[in-house]
Amino acid sequence: MKKKLWVITALMMTTTTMMTAQNTPTTKPLFAFEDLIPGGSTYYTHSYPKTLYLTWWGDQCVERNLEECSLIDNVMGDRKPLFTLSAVNASLTDTQVPYLYLVEFPYPDQPLVLLETPKGRRLWNWETKQVVWSQNGPEGDVTQDWSKDSRHLAYVKDHNLYVVTADGQDMAVSTDGNLDLVYGESVHREEFGISKGTFWSPDGQKLAFYRMDQSMVTSYPQVNIKTDELDATTSRIAVMEPDKYPMAGETSHQVKVGIFDVNSQKTIYLDTPQGSLSGDSVATSTPIYFTNISWAPDGKMLYLIELNRDQNHARLKAYDAATGKFLATLLEEKSDKYVEPMHPIVFLPWDQTKFIYQTRNRDGYNHLYLCTLPDGFPVKPAVNIKPLTCGSFEVLSFEGFNKEKKTILFTSNEADPIGCSVYSVDLKGKRTRLNAQADGWHNVQFAESGAAFFDSWASGNDFENGRLIDVYPASGNSATKGKAPLRLLTARDPWQDFQVPEIKTGTIKAADGVTDLYYRLVLPTNFNPSKKYPTVIYVYGGPHAHLVDAGRHWGVGGWDVWMAQQGYVMFTLDNRGSEHRGLAFEQATFRQLGVEEMKDQLCGVDFLKSLPYVDADRLGVHGWSFGGFMTTSLMTTYPDVFKVGVAGGPVIDWRYYEVMYGERYMDTPQTNPEGYNSTSLLGKAANLKGHLLVIYGGNDPTCVPQHTLSFIRACIDGGTYPDLFTYPGDGHNMQGTDRVHLYRKISQYFDDFLKNK
Amino acid sequence: MKKKLWVITALMMTTTTMMTAQNTPTTKPLFAFEDLIPGGSTYYTHSYPKTLYLTWWGDQCVERNLEECSLIDNVMGDRKPLFTLSAVNASLTDTQVPYLYLVEFPYPDQPLVLLETPKGRRLWNWETKQVVWSQNGPEGDVTQDWSKDSRHLAYVKDHNLYVVTADGQDMAVSTDGNLDLVYGESVHREEFGISKGTFWSPDGQKLAFYRMDQSMVTSYPQVNIKTDELDATTSRIAVMEPDKYPMAGETSHQVKVGIFDVNSQKTIYLDTPQGSLSGDSVATSTPIYFTNISWAPDGKMLYLIELNRDQNHARLKAYDAATGKFLATLLEEKSDKYVEPMHPIVFLPWDQTKFIYQTRNRDGYNHLYLCTLPDGFPVKPAVNIKPLTCGSFEVLSFEGFNKEKKTILFTSNEADPIGCSVYSVDLKGKRTRLNAQADGWHNVQFAESGAAFFDSWASGNDFENGRLIDVYPASGNSATKGKAPLRLLTARDPWQDFQVPEIKTGTIKAADGVTDLYYRLVLPTNFNPSKKYPTVIYVYGGPHAHLVDAGRHWGVGGWDVWMAQQGYVMFTLDNRGSEHRGLAFEQATFRQLGVEEMKDQLCGVDFLKSLPYVDADRLGVHGWSFGGFMTTSLMTTYPDVFKVGVAGGPVIDWRYYEVMYGERYMDTPQTNPEGYNSTSLLGKAANLKGHLLVIYGGNDPTCVPQHTLSFIRACIDGGTYPDLFTYPGDGHNMQGTDRVHLYRKISQYFDDFLKNK
Repeated sequence: MKKKLWVITALMMTTTTMMTAQNTPTTKPLFAFEDLIPGGSTYYTHSYPKTLYLTWWGDQCVERNLEECSLIDNVMGDRKPLFTLSAVNASLTDTQVPYLYLVEFPYPDQPLVLLETPKGRRLWNWETKQVVWSQNGPEGDVTQDWSKDSRHLAYVKDHNLYVVTADGQDMAVSTDGNLDLVYGESVHREEFGISKGTFWSPDGQKLAFYRMDQSMVTSYPQVNIKTDELDATTSRIAVMEPDKYPMAGETSHQVKVGIFDVNSQKTIYLDTPQGSLSGDSVATSTPIYFTNISWAPDGKMLYLIELNRDQNHARLKAYDAATGKFLATLLEEKSDKYVEPMHPIVFLPWDQTKFIYQTRNRDGYNHLYLCTLPDGFPVKPAVNIKPLTCGSFEVLSFEGFNKEKKTILFTSNEADPIGCSVYSVDLKGKRTRLNAQADGWHNVQFAESGAAFFDSWASGNDFENGRLIDVYPASGNSATKGKAPLRLLTARDPWQDFQVPEIKTGTIKAADGVTDLYYRLVLPTNFNPSKKYPTVIYVYGGPHAHLVDAGRHWGVGGWDVWMAQQGYVMFTLDNRGSEHRGLAFEQATFRQLGVEEMKDQLCGVDFLKSLPYVDADRLGVHGWSFGGFMTTSLMTTYPDVFKVGVAGGPVIDWRYYEVMYGERYMDTPQTNPEGYNSTSLLGKAANLKGHLLVIYGGNDPTCVPQHTLSFIRACIDGGTYPDLFTYPGDGHNMQGTDRVHLYRKISQYFDDFLKNK
Repeated sequence: MKKKLWVITALMMTTTTMMTAQNTPTTKPLFAFEDLIPGGSTYYTHSYPKTLYLTWWGDQCVERNLEECSLIDNVMGDRKPLFTLSAVNASLTDTQVPYLYLVEFPYPDQPLVLLETPKGRRLWNWETKQVVWSQNGPEGDVTQDWSKDSRHLAYVKDHNLYVVTADGQDMAVSTDGNLDLVYGESVHREEFGISKGTFWSPDGQKLAFYRMDQSMVTSYPQVNIKTDELDATTSRIAVMEPDKYPMAGETSHQVKVGIFDVNSQKTIYLDTPQGSLSGDSVATSTPIYFTNISWAPDGKMLYLIELNRDQNHARLKAYDAATGKFLATLLEEKSDKYVEPMHPIVFLPWDQTKFIYQTRNRDGYNHLYLCTLPDGFPVKPAVNIKPLTCGSFEVLSFEGFNKEKKTILFTSNEADPIGCSVYSVDLKGKRTRLNAQADGWHNVQFAESGAAFFDSWASGNDFENGRLIDVYPASGNSATKGKAPLRLLTARDPWQDFQVPEIKTGTIKAADGVTDLYYRLVLPTNFNPSKKYPTVIYVYGGPHAHLVDAGRHWGVGGWDVWMAQQGYVMFTLDNRGSEHRGLAFEQATFRQLGVEEMKDQLCGVDFLKSLPYVDADRLGVHGWSFGGFMTTSLMTTYPDVFKVGVAGGPVIDWRYYEVMYGERYMDTPQTNPEGYNSTSLLGKAANLKGHLLVIYGGNDPTCVPQHTLSFIRACIDGGTYPDLFTYPGDGHNMQGTDRVHLYRKISQYFDDFLKNK
């Protein structure tokens, strides 16, 4: 389960293109509500640009469809059928696959497709039309991790870790797993870039895994109201479903890293330090977070980055994969605020003494570094480190290597702070942009050789097309030299069939007077500049997210468009603290989340007030999660500025948020009481003057219901009158039809109390 | 903890008087909100008529005040000081009492006052000014039951039962008590008239008590969000506080009755039958409810009324108090609907072979019966039973005996179906009304001899006075022969200082076409008959409650007055199913709660539509608990009739309500699936059209949050849009400042969506 503090509209943001769409007097129809909201019955046809299901077989491009896979000629674009679903299913004796969209081609030199069937994995040879290898199990919807090298499978069931070998042997790595002791799962609440709990060695014969003891962690008492069990034969009464939730400053879990050797069936644990985790004496110096696991190319060592609870001291360490013994500390990073290791090291495929390291702490932006192990490593641990990229932009993602050219592949926002383009860099630091167009937001998928890639992109400057997919073939192909990439898809934006409001972007200065902040402004459909319009700020404002980007319609969400169609000006500003703008930009908020962010949002308000068509007496604000915190903060800190707010899944008091995310930005309640007190919305609840609707998922495991309910209690005690809604059974975000309901509810609230007042 | 399904305005209803108050063009001020709502800062001064703290010392009338107790001359009304607080406290060496309002005078022939001090009980002689007897403990806020005869004290702490003897010896009656096994507490969720769990024998040497095994009962997962523990040194995370809650048709608890002999320190248990209580095979014939415990006058037998789970077969039984053995079944009652034993038998003080029995099942109204034990009882068990009262009215309460005149004292609504007067009846059935005025609602407090009583009363016909207190002295006092009672208090209605809206009462016909239903109508302040007003129905509608009575302002609540002042017509109708109108009136709703009730409320709507000043396009409805069920039922069953509703603490599906109350009226989900299905509001949630605000206490132990949350979920799934609010930490009703907040919230909702639309 994904538990990140994340903006709800991240789900809305697709990665495509359109320039400010003038709404001309036209006969085009208006949008229906369900056209614009994910989960709406017409959302996919009216808002989602067509796409292709592409993947790589070696350097060859494969298009996957429901019933057929085809090779695409990288130069000419011709499709050549590879195999059909009926052919696949005809040779599957005990199971069937329903479609071919997600099949994989793990071996560049073999005509084998990997099928995930209800019974297990099958490798199917499309030349002989035979299943050449089978591996059954596991049953049920369990987390799986398959090694294409050894063909062993690791999976987690009921908090225990199991392996099925390539020849079908079933092994239990652990047997004592339960809610208190979990094996093979993501740990540390998926912070620090952690997204899984198992890590196969390069040859697939050893499995590194996390083991998390959370017996000492308090449980949040989530309640399942069992609405679907009214006629249950057992009992229909609600039941508690406790969820381990370590709150900031309180006792947290303890993690170890194990290595299971499939051949010996033995497990060893790394000799990592184990800090004290008691709530009343928070360990600040001992490493307690074990992050960014990666294997040495020869499988003999395991690397990881260890971080102390205070999150201001990271250590890149090497352990002996056979014994678990500590070998060397390669690098250390310290900060007077926090360091946040997010990226495992990756060794150069052509030189096992060198690896790529990413950090934002060396020059204030996330960059790539080339590290060289010394002769005599690990006895001599001193690593040579030199920058591969530098400058006031951020590397957004590491994408691999071009093994032939010996370059490193990545994306960055060098060309445009709100854009994303594809680059290579050689070991001397020479960067080359690989995608033809510098504008827009480019999602890239490289072939394993790194010689070819797909580029699925869109740009705010292009409002005709919703998605473009180009293929850049392997550079060794002389036919493409100097040619433009081959366009595989030109997906017209489905919004072109409707009256799209004008969507603009630009920058204003932050409250510090110097920093540029990007905004997006959506004007009402049938805009009349002599009118005064109610105006709603859609906000997130927290780290690791942005709302304004160079993609399709500048990243606008469908709800903004709906509101514009109802006669609202919609405005969004990515304040300091949000992502992709460097370390100082993000860390301006340290130990006082919300304070600088609100100052920047008030600069946005000043900008709005400078626009003659904005009705400054009818300003509203809406946001979810961190954006719900921002909304509630703004409504209670500036009660005379905002008339109406809708806060979803809000953080109300960072004391109720979890250890890993919360303490990074706020330290602990013990060490930063003034920061926790001054940002708490419990103390501001009595300030509320406008209409504030607070909405939470009834079983939110991220911002637990205690946030919203405590705020409601504080408002009652303080004599103020918020409104409330909940989605029973839902988590941190609403999806499907619940999302449609949610945005109808939110829209109605602004109509009732902002537009029609 | 009181857990009855009860109407929130029951707390509002005081028992005083006033006739339809014409709002004349006057300079009187309007009410402030807090004048009218219990919990408001000016409620007690502006809405609560003055009272006296009276009690009896034998047949002598005592007035208790903060600092003094006085004897009142029953004939002349002169006060004679008895003792002062300072005198009391001067002789208390180790503790003090803060006021004298609640002291008691247990011994008619001794000058002793019983003081409940923080340290324990003291008997203080006001002539010698000495403490003559002390009994320390128990500490903390625990349930206590003191015998004035033996001066032993029983108390319950942490689910175990203890006795402190008159001489201070501490005894544990039980030691294995916990949430699963409770001793000495109220059982069966306080249905069947049960309000306590300990029962002293006449001489105070034996203690009958309940023992309830609820280990087999499901727990409702109530959550304590600990808003007051933000800086807790342990953990601030929410905690589960499970509450045993047997839902209709599911497995219920098992109760036994024990008797503890203080002298032998031995406990025996009655040999009561123990029925099967498994949820999937509901026992319908075996007695499982053990109710209405009373002692034989000689303390040798214990009587109780046993009832089967189907609640249609009651048995009055006698058990041997020394051995626990079953002795005799004295009476049985059966019904094709339900019987509901509410009253323990009471033996005549002057004849230990005769007792008073109350039932509504013999002639359709609650009446008193005189029962005579046969010679040879208990071997010969056949009891002779004959009516003492009869007729189409209800005995409302048994009040005791006049031992000298050998009459039985009670209240009834014989004089007025919505009134309450005081009567005596002799053994031949001759009734005499004892209070001078037949109108109004009379609260009576008899001296133990039954010869004298206080009458605290008010009448809807009298709008000058808020409360009148009369004393009727002992009839043996020749000075009062033929005289009017002595008036001790004439408390002017504090509302007379404000503009009181016109408040009327009357009857309309029920949906059956024949039954009279009582309504109350409140006209807007500054009523203009040529205007059209928004109109709100305030509803309860369930059994064991009424909203319209002959008391002060016809039982109106302050919120109705507030709403009238805001320009609403307010209307309330006690539909069939409500109390005091006989068995057929109540049981018209059997197995389909809400159906007939709504039909009657629609008769009320027809009546309202016949009034030229009612705006039929702006009808609203509000109710709490059963009234919340009614409100939600009306909003979803008649979505075109009601535009706005506010439902508080509603029952949404009777399958989520508890066994004892729920199965009485609805049978079980297994035996009455069509009744449960057709009355469930989950199936009607998709019908909602108007504005419906649903409010619940965050920790409601009566209508558990599962009701409201399931309804919200059903509305989301059904594509309808209710509003929601909750009072975190509150139970079934809001009190104090939360109540003020609640009614502001409710008022605002009607203003937003009914009045100003």
